[in-house]
Order: sequence, then structure tokens, then C-alpha cells
Amino acid sequence: MTTETITTEESTLTINGERLWQSLMELAKIGAYDDAATGLVGINRQSLTDEDREGRRLVMSWMEEAGLDVTVDQMGNIFGRREGTEPSAAPVMAGSHIDTVATAGAFDGCLGVLGALELVRSLNDAGLQTRRPLVIAAWTEEEGVRFGTDMLGSAVAAGRLSLDYAYDLVDEAGLRFGDELERIGFMGERPVRLDAPHAYVEAHIEQGPVLQQKGLAVGVVTGVQAISWQKVTLHGRAAHAGTTPTELRVDAGLAAAQVIVQVRAMVDSGLYGQLRATVGHVRTSPGLPSVVPDLAEITVDLRNPDDALMAKAEADLEAFLLELPHKQPGLRVETKRMAKTTAVPFSEEIQSAIATAAQDLGHETMRLMSGAGHDAQEMAAIAPTAMIFVRGQYDGISHNPREYSTPEDCAAGINVLAKAILQLCV
Amino acid sequence: MTTETITTEESTLTINGERLWQSLMELAKIGAYDDAATGLVGINRQSLTDEDREGRRLVMSWMEEAGLDVTVDQMGNIFGRREGTEPSAAPVMAGSHIDTVATAGAFDGCLGVLGALELVRSLNDAGLQTRRPLVIAAWTEEEGVRFGTDMLGSAVAAGRLSLDYAYDLVDEAGLRFGDELERIGFMGERPVRLDAPHAYVEAHIEQGPVLQQKGLAVGVVTGVQAISWQKVTLHGRAAHAGTTPTELRVDAGLAAAQVIVQVRAMVDSGLYGQLRATVGHVRTSPGLPSVVPDLAEITVDLRNPDDALMAKAEADLEAFLLELPHKQPGLRVETKRMAKTTAVPFSEEIQSAIATAAQDLGHETMRLMSGAGHDAQEMAAIAPTAMIFVRGQYDGISHNPREYSTPEDCAAGINVLAKAILQLCV
Repeated sequence: MTTETITTEESTLTINGERLWQSLMELAKIGAYDDAATGLVGINRQSLTDEDREGRRLVMSWMEEAGLDVTVDQMGNIFGRREGTEPSAAPVMAGSHIDTVATAGAFDGCLGVLGALELVRSLNDAGLQTRRPLVIAAWTEEEGVRFGTDMLGSAVAAGRLSLDYAYDLVDEAGLRFGDELERIGFMGERPVRLDAPHAYVEAHIEQGPVLQQKGLAVGVVTGVQAISWQKVTLHGRAAHAGTTPTELRVDAGLAAAQVIVQVRAMVDSGLYGQLRATVGHVRTSPGLPSVVPDLAEITVDLRNPDDALMAKAEADLEAFLLELPHKQPGLRVETKRMAKTTAVPFSEEIQSAIATAAQDLGHETMRLMSGAGHDAQEMAAIAPTAMIFVRGQYDGISHNPREYSTPEDCAAGINVLAKAILQLCV
Repeated sequence: MTTETITTEESTLTINGERLWQSLMELAKIGAYDDAATGLVGINRQSLTDEDREGRRLVMSWMEEAGLDVTVDQMGNIFGRREGTEPSAAPVMAGSHIDTVATAGAFDGCLGVLGALELVRSLNDAGLQTRRPLVIAAWTEEEGVRFGTDMLGSAVAAGRLSLDYAYDLVDEAGLRFGDELERIGFMGERPVRLDAPHAYVEAHIEQGPVLQQKGLAVGVVTGVQAISWQKVTLHGRAAHAGTTPTELRVDAGLAAAQVIVQVRAMVDSGLYGQLRATVGHVRTSPGLPSVVPDLAEITVDLRNPDDALMAKAEADLEAFLLELPHKQPGLRVETKRMAKTTAVPFSEEIQSAIATAAQDLGHETMRLMSGAGHDAQEMAAIAPTAMIFVRGQYDGISHNPREYSTPEDCAAGINVLAKAILQLCV
């Protein structure tokens, strides 16, 4: 095999879309199950399970076959390094995760890992060597469904969370993260704190409907929006629907409905920029047709790419909640913070590299915010970072066996990843 | 025992409040259980259970001890007749029920039956005989919790429902009403269709907060309001809270909240008279914080003493529901009728007799609508009928072990019952 050093001018490389697709489908067999709700085959490969171990082993074997130097850190994060002509230069890193939720499809996370692998395979095929080293990362427990904290592996690697915090997390069965990591044989020796790479680029399915609606295969991700999750519990007074005059009621369900209507009104007002608001969970107690609810429990999920506008939305929602007992004396409002993250804007420079790569490859593209969390937001703390979104079908449904991106869109996204990475490796 | 015929002038009789209370507490022992939710002793004496049989036997033995001629009809309704000086005159009837819900107190229904029994005992003590015969009725399955149809015994006796309909009802375990009636030995021989009595009067706890709020021990019931129960199911589209732009959402939970806010707005508008509206049950699916609900299910309970205003409220609600898909294209609204009854106004004449009796006994009183259903609404179809409400404590909580009326209020209510009945018996 002749190995040439790649230059900026030569940095176009067409990846093998068919091989990428085959790898995605091969990995998807691990953890496959028959999903009753959809009638499809779903994937359940949650972090640090036997299925996850099997998936990790397969991906590591592919990395080794591709000639990568494979190491595992103290969080079980897997790295595959392809040496550059200047080994001391900070590497360019590309990656994502292969753990899944309980009812997953084949693309969430896996596209980013196997896409980076396909880039390496294509470089090997072409006999090309980059100046900077290239590192593929497969992060542990991105989903957070088993141990309750998402982006766990990348968060510890990038320094936001401690190793001890991660090790002591327990799953619903009471099993400790550290013990399970040991059990599956992925307690690696590589120190978990990562030296800052030159850049980090993550390809991922969009998990939303925007690219499909706009008719675009790929998008440039501008950042991850701030997230605020609260549980709001409204305490009223149970009362008989027939015998209790309206003016004597303290209706917790009515108060909950007023909150739901209000958060949408806040979104529609335009006062909070690109605010998104969702009340996904609603429950009333006792839940009987003829009893005024004494309790209503809702979750309020707010998202905003702008931290200041998010803070304004949260303050105004709080003021609205404080007003509710004035509308219904006797009502008690309780709020509990479930999650809160600030907005993470991605590097303009890396966004430009992706946008230029897409343009050079003839893809019309757009910039869009990520609504969901990703490992890239952790890496953004230590390195210039951005993401490439790949269009999903069926309104971008994800965390569901119906999750699907076409072979063509996957190849398009990874060709953009390849071109951007090679540009950054020069 | 000397027996005198009672005259209008002599129609004041003071009942024995202590004996009434003892009977209430004695009957309450049958079906008693320790209620975990309240830490109190509750009563579970559902219709046609072994406990109901035991309760029936106790009440029948008391009727017999009081010298009544006891008969049981084909529905298991129990009648205790005290002969009048003019046996061919249509009797005056007083009664209620002794079956309970699963988590009951001691008063719902039992006060009306044991109050009428106390009237008979007091007449016996005083050696008085009325011109018209006096009949106590204890109706079968008023609650409807076991076989699904409330006021079942009185509805068949008064002719609204057929015997076959009742016999073929099954409980959740699949047991047939007719078989269970046979099993407990209360398939009586008396024909179920009742000859119209001269009047029917039912004393009952209010099961609401109005009398307590007004500081009154007793109230005169003007009728039973119309009831409309619907289940409204809203079908939206599940979507990721972070990734789905607001304008692409079909949020079933938001639509449900809009309905809840709207029905209260209808009540507050004053356009529908004394409309009461309750959404007691709210459920969203999948019910996750970060997923826009694809489904929301609510119940809408409307009550109105005026049938025309009820019809207007129902039509306007339907129009509102039909508008919802215009606000959120893609939304589908499904409604299912759960129950519907028309308003039952009580006899002005009987209401006056009760009001006069209360006034003569020095009780300030008020007229109020019944929010709940009662056997009296069935009897109103065949005889001049009205009800006496007795104040409940704790906002009139009922269908709960906390249900409570004081011995003084029970005695006050039954003294009013006694005076009104004697007036009607002359």
C-alpha cells in the first residue's frame, strides 16, 4: 500500500456508502428485538449490558482491522487513533456513541462512530495519510437511560463530571456503574481526562423534522440549546363534581391546564426568541370523572438557544405560577428542578469548515440548532467543536424502531464529515 | 300500647336522636375495614355481597321488631309497611339505600333508611297511628359501583329500567346481578313495579359543602340536575420536545388543556345558568417530559339543573371541539358518551311540606339542587317527591371514610323528615 500525505487540494475523498450501510446494519443486529408497538425490529443495547459489550467488541475489531491503535479509558470510552505524518500535532477527533435507549433504531450515535470508521477505511483504500492524527471516539452511556445521566462518558472525559460521580451511579436494579464497567471488561487504563484535540466533529441523525421539511440531506449544527426541565405539582382540594359550587373549588387540573396553555402562549408571543416549550407528562389525582382533582402533576420542558431569553422565560413562568393561587385561593404550587443545562454554541470555524465541505460537495445545506443533547456539547468545553446533522425520515422520529435515514443521506453526511475532517487535519 | 290516630295539630313528634345514632353506628360495623389512605375505619358494603346480605338482615330484623310488615320485591328492594287507619289509602313512602361504595362512611343512604325507621319507632313509642299507611323503602344497588348502573333498584321499581336489564348486568368478576340476588337470598316475590305512593320523601346527607358554608343543618332539595359525562380523546403526533419546531407540532396535551380551560370559561360566562363543569381525569401518552403527547384523554362532567341550558352547553362544547383541528391541523378529536341524564325537578308541594316542617321546628333552611343522583329522582317519575339534605362536615366529603354528619344534624334532619311525613300522612 502506497501511503501519500494528503494536502488541502487533495482533501476530497468519496467514502464507500455501501460499506458504511453494511456496518450500520451489522451493528444493529446486536440487541435486536421484536418491537410489539411498531411491528418492527428494534434495538435495545443499553450502556454496559452484555449487548453493549458485544457491540463494543465488534466496533473495536473493526477499528483494529482498519489499522487503528485502539485504547480504552477509565470510563470505557473507546478511542481508535490513526497516526498522522506529524504525530505530535493535536489530533482531529470524530465520534459519537453506540449505546442505545430501550427502543432504538440503528442510527442514533452509531452513524457518527461508524461514519468516522468509514472515513478511516476510505483513507486506507486511497493510501492517504493526514498531517494531524485522526482519532475516532465511541463514548460511554450517552443516552443516560440506564444510569440516569446523559453524555456521561464524554462529560467525564471533558472534565465536567468526576470519575467518582460516574462510578457511583446506580441503575434501577441497584447495579453500580463502576461495577458494571468492570464486569463487561471495559474499565480501561487510559486516563480519562482528555488532552484537547485540535477539533471535534460529530455526525448524527437530526432526530427532528427540520431537514426533511426543508428537503435537505445535511445540516450544519450551530449549537445545543439550553434545556430546563421542571416538575410542577399543583395541590388543590378534591371535591364532588356535582355537589361543589364552582366558587368553592380548588381545581388542580384546571391550574395545570392554565400552565400548559400559558407556556404555549409564551412561545407564540415571540418575546423569548426561539423558545420551545413542551408539557409531555400530565397526571391528575384521583383521576375520576366526577371528582375535582386534588393534585395535578406536569412536566415543563423549555428549550432555548439563548441563555438570556431562557432565563427570561423561566422567570416569567415562575411569576405565572406564583399568580395561580390568586386565581384559586387554597391552591399550592410546588416546583422541582429536574434538569438544567445552558446553551452550548458551537465553533464558528468548525461550522464554516462543515458548511464549505457541504457546499463543495454540491449539497445545499442550512444551519440549525440541536434540540437534543450530544457528546459534542461536552467536547465543546475543551476543543473547537461542531456537528453535522443527517436527515431522518418520518419527521425525524428517533428513540423508536421507526427511526430511519436513507443509505444516500447517511453517505452524504459522512462524505461531508470526511471532507471537513480532512480539511481540519491538514 | 294505646294507639291514637294522629291529626295535623298533633303532627309534631320528636324522634330519638340517640337511638338513630346507635342504629347508624351499628349498621356501620357491617363491611367495616381499616382504610389505609385516611387511617380511619371505612365501610365497604357493596350491593349483593355477603356484607350487603348481613346489612339487609339487620335492617329487616329492626323493621320487624318495630312491627312493620316486611316484603322484598323481585329486585331485592325491601319494604317495611306500617298500617294506617285507612289501609286502602295510598301510602306515604320514605327511604333510601344501605349499599355503599368501596370506601364509604356511615351516612350515605343509611341515614334515609334508618331515619325512616326511627320515625316508626318514635310513632310506636308515642302510640300514634297515621291515617295513610307509612312505607319504608331500602333500595337495591343505588351506588352502581358493583353492577355499573346507579339507582338500579328504584329505577326498575319506578319503571325506567326493566327487570331483565337489571338481572343481566354483570360485575367486574363476571357475576350476574340476577344470580347474585338469588345467591344472597333476596330474590323476593313481590312484583317489582310499584303502585304510586301518595308521596315519597328521602332524607340524605348533602355530600357537598353548601349547607356547611351557609351554617345550616338542613336544606330542601329542589331537584336533581342533569348530568352529561363524555370521554374526549385527542389524537396528536408524538414529537421530540427539543428538535421539533413549534409550528410542526400536533400537541394532544395542549388541545386537552384548551378544553379544560374552555369548560371553566363556559361556567364563568354565566351563559349556561348554573352549569358546573369538571375535568377529573387527564392522561397523556407517552407521558414523557421530552415527548410532545400523541394522545390525551380527558373526561368532561357537565351538570345543569336546566335541560335547555345543558343542551346549549353541550352544543357549544361540541363546536369548540370541532374547532380544535383548525388550530392544530392534524389533530383528531374523538368523543364518547359515558352517561347522560336529564334534570329532575322535585314536587313544589313536597318541598313546601319540608320547608314548613323545618320552619315549624325552628330550623333556618335553604333550597338547593342535588348535585348527585338519588333514588328520589326515580320515584319522582311516579309520585310527588322531594328530599331533605343534612349537613356534612369537612366540606361535605362523601364516598370516603371521612364522611361525617354530627348526631345533632342527623337528628335535626330526621325530625324534619318526621314532621313532613306526618303532615303528608294525614
